[in-house]
Amino acid sequence: MKFAVNSSALEKLLGKVIPAIPPRTPMQVIEHFLVQIQENILTVTGTDLDMFITCTMNIDSDGDFEAIIPAKLFYDLVRSIPDSMIHFEAGDNKTLNLKTDSGVYQLGYAEATDFPQLPAVTYTKQVNIAGSVLKNAFDLTSFAASKEPMRPAMTGILFDFTDEGLKFVATDGHRLVRYIHKTLKFEEADQIVVPSKTVDILLKFVGDAQVAVSYTSSNVLFRFSDITMISNLINQKYPAYNSVIPLENENILKLDKKPLVSAVKRMLLFDSTSFPKVKLSLNESVVEVSSEDINKGSRGTESIPCEYNGAPMEIAFNTNFMYDVINHMEQDKLLFRFESPTRAALVEGLEPTEDKDVLMLLMPVRLNV
Amino acid sequence: MKFAVNSSALEKLLGKVIPAIPPRTPMQVIEHFLVQIQENILTVTGTDLDMFITCTMNIDSDGDFEAIIPAKLFYDLVRSIPDSMIHFEAGDNKTLNLKTDSGVYQLGYAEATDFPQLPAVTYTKQVNIAGSVLKNAFDLTSFAASKEPMRPAMTGILFDFTDEGLKFVATDGHRLVRYIHKTLKFEEADQIVVPSKTVDILLKFVGDAQVAVSYTSSNVLFRFSDITMISNLINQKYPAYNSVIPLENENILKLDKKPLVSAVKRMLLFDSTSFPKVKLSLNESVVEVSSEDINKGSRGTESIPCEYNGAPMEIAFNTNFMYDVINHMEQDKLLFRFESPTRAALVEGLEPTEDKDVLMLLMPVRLNV
Repeated sequence: MKFAVNSSALEKLLGKVIPAIPPRTPMQVIEHFLVQIQENILTVTGTDLDMFITCTMNIDSDGDFEAIIPAKLFYDLVRSIPDSMIHFEAGDNKTLNLKTDSGVYQLGYAEATDFPQLPAVTYTKQVNIAGSVLKNAFDLTSFAASKEPMRPAMTGILFDFTDEGLKFVATDGHRLVRYIHKTLKFEEADQIVVPSKTVDILLKFVGDAQVAVSYTSSNVLFRFSDITMISNLINQKYPAYNSVIPLENENILKLDKKPLVSAVKRMLLFDSTSFPKVKLSLNESVVEVSSEDINKGSRGTESIPCEYNGAPMEIAFNTNFMYDVINHMEQDKLLFRFESPTRAALVEGLEPTEDKDVLMLLMPVRLNV
Repeated sequence: MKFAVNSSALEKLLGKVIPAIPPRTPMQVIEHFLVQIQENILTVTGTDLDMFITCTMNIDSDGDFEAIIPAKLFYDLVRSIPDSMIHFEAGDNKTLNLKTDSGVYQLGYAEATDFPQLPAVTYTKQVNIAGSVLKNAFDLTSFAASKEPMRPAMTGILFDFTDEGLKFVATDGHRLVRYIHKTLKFEEADQIVVPSKTVDILLKFVGDAQVAVSYTSSNVLFRFSDITMISNLINQKYPAYNSVIPLENENILKLDKKPLVSAVKRMLLFDSTSFPKVKLSLNESVVEVSSEDINKGSRGTESIPCEYNGAPMEIAFNTNFMYDVINHMEQDKLLFRFESPTRAALVEGLEPTEDKDVLMLLMPVRLNV
């Protein structure tokens, strides 16, 4: 078996599959790429058992081939070769020979027999979503997913297929993001919970073009350009997030995002505990953002102009959580809705948007602890 | 006490002192800046006990001041304030108050009584060296200094004041760099060994202008622009490095740096042991660079055009050490001088240079281990 391929094109292909390869695993076989050549199509597959990424390209080969090849070595070698042709040839003794302009390389390979099988499921449901929508939704939600394995569903991103739109939801109990893509509506309600790792890898590779999303109750398949990504779903019911979102928060605060983000970020310096706290003191035309470290005698206060329609109020949040939330808001002007210092606060962009509806929720913390 | 200072100017000043502050230390006082105001000069000092960095700026203060202030918090706060004036005022209860355009900050401070004293030495010897020369010499030598605390002298950089020039030397026993600055000659021979950490910090801040270097047998002082840096010297005799440099290596190899560097770097992929080895096979017009991992059945070979005047020879080096050495060579064409597979090899730039003379030495490793 012989074929030639451009190093940059192959690097690009392998670069899309390598994120599936686990960095450390006791199961040696999944530290390899499954490399298949069949009828002039090169297919490379990687897996961490939870997800499979497969990527293909057309080549001109004089024969078929199937083997597993050490993933990191193969990728690093191809990556280190400047843009030029690499000539492959299967050699004796299970070695794959690579010839470049200036060098000759041998990679040991093994039979593909032990490589894990793709899940044998039939995808009955399918929806096409613009890649740009997926990227935007993942970008604004995935940060809020829980890192706690105790409640598996909350470590994933909910895809909530509803008649109001396709809703993407992530929460860790302290904050929640709900992203509604309003132009895709579904008569039949359905929910799947996609692992964060899958979403984070997709975020890297999804372009603007359409993505075909197929799913069953146990698996989801994303197909776009030359990539197919199959992932297990999280097999747990997602919490009833709608009941957490308050409907009656009537104290409305409008202010600019930029000074708020930089003030909250600065407050992280003043409370270096593992649960840093920032206090907002709401007044008609100014909000004071403050934080302190009583032990060290240090304290910071920033004043930000605002419009606030409620009675003066003090409310506190975990500084990191608040920073994450406001930093992920896309609009320059923000609208907060408060009820009381002990109830959830809501954040949105001030301007309504046509196709989507992004709402973030922040749980307050006690003022005096 | 009151004064005002521009945040960017203060950030720049603190940024030069902060590298002296140890990241973790049981001795709380040295996690602070010593901040002094005397006759409208602001002086900030930091130390890790081995070295002191002091930086000054003119301000307009209505009184004197002396205190220690938490270094990281002070620096991070000033750094987070956009380019604007900060108004300082010493408040009650040992707090320093900072007012910015939008915020008010309080930093707790303490008396400076426990802050370590600068070494009380009289510097009798002094030499002025262009900052550009120091930077270049440090850049090309410090990577080769030993990381092993067992032989303290070799963890530093030797300043060898000789009648042939000022020589900077670093070695870890596996490789050696000798950098001769030929235009500064000294009738009276002298040697000092400067700790690598001091050299690495200087490398960040030294500009092209003259640096005044003063020293005693125990301390060295570098003064340039607004910075004074005082460092302990390593109080140990430096090994007699001249006896290590062979004089009779007659097998000469000339080749381009770039393909050699990229070939040697690629060889790191093929020998992932903790002591990776690269083999050079020297022939009249081509040098083969190769490496292999017998256990994994993988191997790489690159062929690089060259001019070589000796008998064909094979010699091996630690891949990382060889990569470091050739990667630090400044010229596009390199000249190697070999004696035998078991003797030190020398590397220089092919073209002689007027003001300086850079020689690197690499110890070979056994070919078949």
